[in-house]
Amino acid sequence: MKFPQSVKLVEVGPRDGLQNEARLVPAEVKIALIDMLSESGLSVIESGSFVSPKWVPQMATTPEVMAGITRRPGTSYPVLTPNLQGLESAIAARAEEVAVFAAASESFSRKNINCSIAESLDRFAPVMERAKAAGIRVRGYVSCVLGCPYEGEIAPAAVAEVAARLAAMGCYEVSLGDTIGTGTPAKARAMVEAVTARLPVSMLAAHFHDTYGQALANILAVLDLGVAVVDASVAGLGGCPYAKGASGNVASEDVLYMLNGLGIRTGVDLDRLVAAGKFICGQLEKSSGSKVALAQGGQIG
Amino acid sequence: MKFPQSVKLVEVGPRDGLQNEARLVPAEVKIALIDMLSESGLSVIESGSFVSPKWVPQMATTPEVMAGITRRPGTSYPVLTPNLQGLESAIAARAEEVAVFAAASESFSRKNINCSIAESLDRFAPVMERAKAAGIRVRGYVSCVLGCPYEGEIAPAAVAEVAARLAAMGCYEVSLGDTIGTGTPAKARAMVEAVTARLPVSMLAAHFHDTYGQALANILAVLDLGVAVVDASVAGLGGCPYAKGASGNVASEDVLYMLNGLGIRTGVDLDRLVAAGKFICGQLEKSSGSKVALAQGGQIG
Repeated sequence: MKFPQSVKLVEVGPRDGLQNEARLVPAEVKIALIDMLSESGLSVIESGSFVSPKWVPQMATTPEVMAGITRRPGTSYPVLTPNLQGLESAIAARAEEVAVFAAASESFSRKNINCSIAESLDRFAPVMERAKAAGIRVRGYVSCVLGCPYEGEIAPAAVAEVAARLAAMGCYEVSLGDTIGTGTPAKARAMVEAVTARLPVSMLAAHFHDTYGQALANILAVLDLGVAVVDASVAGLGGCPYAKGASGNVASEDVLYMLNGLGIRTGVDLDRLVAAGKFICGQLEKSSGSKVALAQGGQIG
Repeated sequence: MKFPQSVKLVEVGPRDGLQNEARLVPAEVKIALIDMLSESGLSVIESGSFVSPKWVPQMATTPEVMAGITRRPGTSYPVLTPNLQGLESAIAARAEEVAVFAAASESFSRKNINCSIAESLDRFAPVMERAKAAGIRVRGYVSCVLGCPYEGEIAPAAVAEVAARLAAMGCYEVSLGDTIGTGTPAKARAMVEAVTARLPVSMLAAHFHDTYGQALANILAVLDLGVAVVDASVAGLGGCPYAKGASGNVASEDVLYMLNGLGIRTGVDLDRLVAAGKFICGQLEKSSGSKVALAQGGQIG
């Protein structure tokens, strides 16, 4: 097995994670969390979303959060922007990076954002143009890359097509999301291989959920193909919106522990990351979804 | 990556798992659990331990359990036998297979079984001889293969030495235990490579704990080296005796889900295995340690 020498960890807890937590978290807590995360050395922390607060109440605080964080040089704080209005808000909030999202499954696209895959990409076109003009990087998310809650199996070629279209529209990075966590290592590799037939591997991120416990094995399998960007959520924040009580995002601490063990550089300090996870779990009054955090709490060795 | 075509799953829940659960489980519940596990297609189910009930009260029911189970043709029900007296009890209980256990760490050996590694192996010599005479297979366990709670790092060569001595004494299989779950994939591979310099890979089992969330990734990494026997515990029964609240044995359901996804044959039915895990979790009044079980409870897709 051959692995990249360094990996960029993309922390998605403050947005993708908290968005799926039932309890509303005040802006000052989110600011404290994001600052602890940046102090751990993370270079990318997804920090909010400019969507309608009617649809995602947890993200209503995004402007205050973006205004309140201490921006660490070298760290970027991307936000989700589904449309031009969101992008203008992101620009006003001094975001250096934004994200747009599409699905690899037609059924999921229709149920989740109420339009076809092609329509969702069309809607992003003006966002991409305006972002480019404003000098803002755009990341593209593709969901359901290893399975769909409505359709089941998703063809790797369908994932590659959406990824390639996002790249063609100007996304500098495409994050491949196993939204329901049903992927396994050989399937993850086959999907990444299909995408790398269209895009350089350096543009790809693995965003694998741990719903079936497979996330680290799947990440390991695609690191071996050269994927060097991994999305994860501190303390495994978020859960799975499609299966009550199940896991969602893989815990950043557990990913980092594996990368450290493999000798892969990340620039992130595990103890500080664990501390950030403990802080937010205390605020949410829930136990951590990170096994590393639970083991360190129990103090092995 | 290249994987074995089939893997033997060794279910250790009824012994290694329950032994570390605080609540005493009555013999009839253990019998029902073991019968559900054998009906799932498992060919090896570790079912008890002939040790002093003073030290391990949960295992005091082993004779009743061994007498009460419905023995499925093709399934073996090994028991732990630390000494000749235990072996005689195992023979009386009609065990076709027994297990002995040593550590790769001197400190762990002294703290856990109160003797050096060499002394522990000497103690097993008469057990091995008597088992051979009685036509009973003996499995050897090596603990602390990827780290020790007292010594920290363990040299792969130390693991290989103990594994080779167990094999030389007559063990047909050697199970390599990451007792505290601190291993990561490259470390797991280096350890297995050191052992396969002394023993054929077909003699080796991976017994990797999930305390730091690394078990499936570590299993994937050594499947790629040809390891084709994997130990796991239904519902992740057991926890970690060295870190309160942390995970211990990897959940059998999650291992099987990965193996199924990789197209590796096991002969085990996932739905029946999940049902067995739900049964014992109900009896213990605790939630499952298997993410697959939690996801299926939440009914994705």
